[in-house]
Amino acid sequence: MKFSAIQVVCFDADDTLWPNEPYFQEAEQRFCALLEDFMPHHSVSQELFRTEMQNLPLYGYGIKAFMLSMIETILRVTEDQAPAAMIRKAIEYGKELLDKPIELFPEVNDVLTTLSGRYRLVVATKGDLLDQERKLKKSGIAHFFHHIEIMSEKKESDYLKLLQHLDCDPLHFLMIGNSLKSDILPVLEVGGYGVHIPFHTTWAHEMIQQPVEHPRLERLSGIGELLKFFPS
Amino acid sequence: MKFSAIQVVCFDADDTLWPNEPYFQEAEQRFCALLEDFMPHHSVSQELFRTEMQNLPLYGYGIKAFMLSMIETILRVTEDQAPAAMIRKAIEYGKELLDKPIELFPEVNDVLTTLSGRYRLVVATKGDLLDQERKLKKSGIAHFFHHIEIMSEKKESDYLKLLQHLDCDPLHFLMIGNSLKSDILPVLEVGGYGVHIPFHTTWAHEMIQQPVEHPRLERLSGIGELLKFFPS
Repeated sequence: MKFSAIQVVCFDADDTLWPNEPYFQEAEQRFCALLEDFMPHHSVSQELFRTEMQNLPLYGYGIKAFMLSMIETILRVTEDQAPAAMIRKAIEYGKELLDKPIELFPEVNDVLTTLSGRYRLVVATKGDLLDQERKLKKSGIAHFFHHIEIMSEKKESDYLKLLQHLDCDPLHFLMIGNSLKSDILPVLEVGGYGVHIPFHTTWAHEMIQQPVEHPRLERLSGIGELLKFFPS
Repeated sequence: MKFSAIQVVCFDADDTLWPNEPYFQEAEQRFCALLEDFMPHHSVSQELFRTEMQNLPLYGYGIKAFMLSMIETILRVTEDQAPAAMIRKAIEYGKELLDKPIELFPEVNDVLTTLSGRYRLVVATKGDLLDQERKLKKSGIAHFFHHIEIMSEKKESDYLKLLQHLDCDPLHFLMIGNSLKSDILPVLEVGGYGVHIPFHTTWAHEMIQQPVEHPRLERLSGIGELLKFFPS
């Protein structure tokens, strides 16, 4: 079996255990509509992405960073002519994002129930510390996990730190996630295994064009298919 | 010796290893000046604190939360009459905070050098994930620490989780910090030891009026005095 050496099964959270990016895209649509008197939707979207990328090294990931980037984009796009009510709207969109419900993908509970007890289960997620903790809590599945790691980045060095922390050899480590760039490629690179479960919506920053083939990688169309590899 | 059972020495970071609150207070002064045409300084300060407290459960601690609270305070105090340039200023103040240098308090290096190797040294700090990581990196002392814990809260349950994570009995755990409320009282409550090193400036949210006396607590006037308790 491909995953017979695995001891630690690590899950990405957003868009792997529950949908998240669609909420951001919905907020972005409303944000573009807010600025439509100043600029066409598509250009606002590009401006927002530019602000987010400029701010990423300073703010990191998460909703608060997104809110600040929306506000900065308003100021720039309107050349400081934005009415205050527009800023208020952007804050409102952000606060609504913080309050979104958590709706698990189908079969998440089955998968965790099956793996639990046989493997050390871990969550590794990027984003705002408090917000990610709150989502895990809301999800009702936090009790399945031996460890929850909220990370400022998911690069090779970050995974090496996590592996050291878990006292786990990469050959015993499987990472499951929707982002090739953040969840899969760095893990394969350090010697671990990956299961890629693409989600229909991907943030531009996480996109990778070329398909990836690798002997330690599987691609699944849904998390429930994991049960094929880990029968109960 | 009072601390003879200690195995893990855990340090708060901001205002314990380096000054931080003075930078916030300086930013707040500038923020109050920004709004002086609308409200006297002292009232702006109160309004900002009120916004911060309202947002705390939603945003948590850290500079991004502070920035968003400044912006919301501007909107409320000016009744949406704020010129966009005022919002821009608030963002600028926040970005300057994110870029402040880290200047260790005197004797921090001596203390860490003396304790290192004999105790497991840990940092436990609240704030923005990326920002706290960056400060530790900038500080040049990250290598002394066995573990760095960035926490969304510092209540009893959070310390219990940390102790479990460190596999440490509270009776072997010493927490050193400037905030009675966050660093000392919850640790004493769960059975650990505390060293309180007051700093001249304390955020209103962290203030506790009554003095605290406890057999497992010491109060020092500077971190260097720790060496009296842990001679080399």
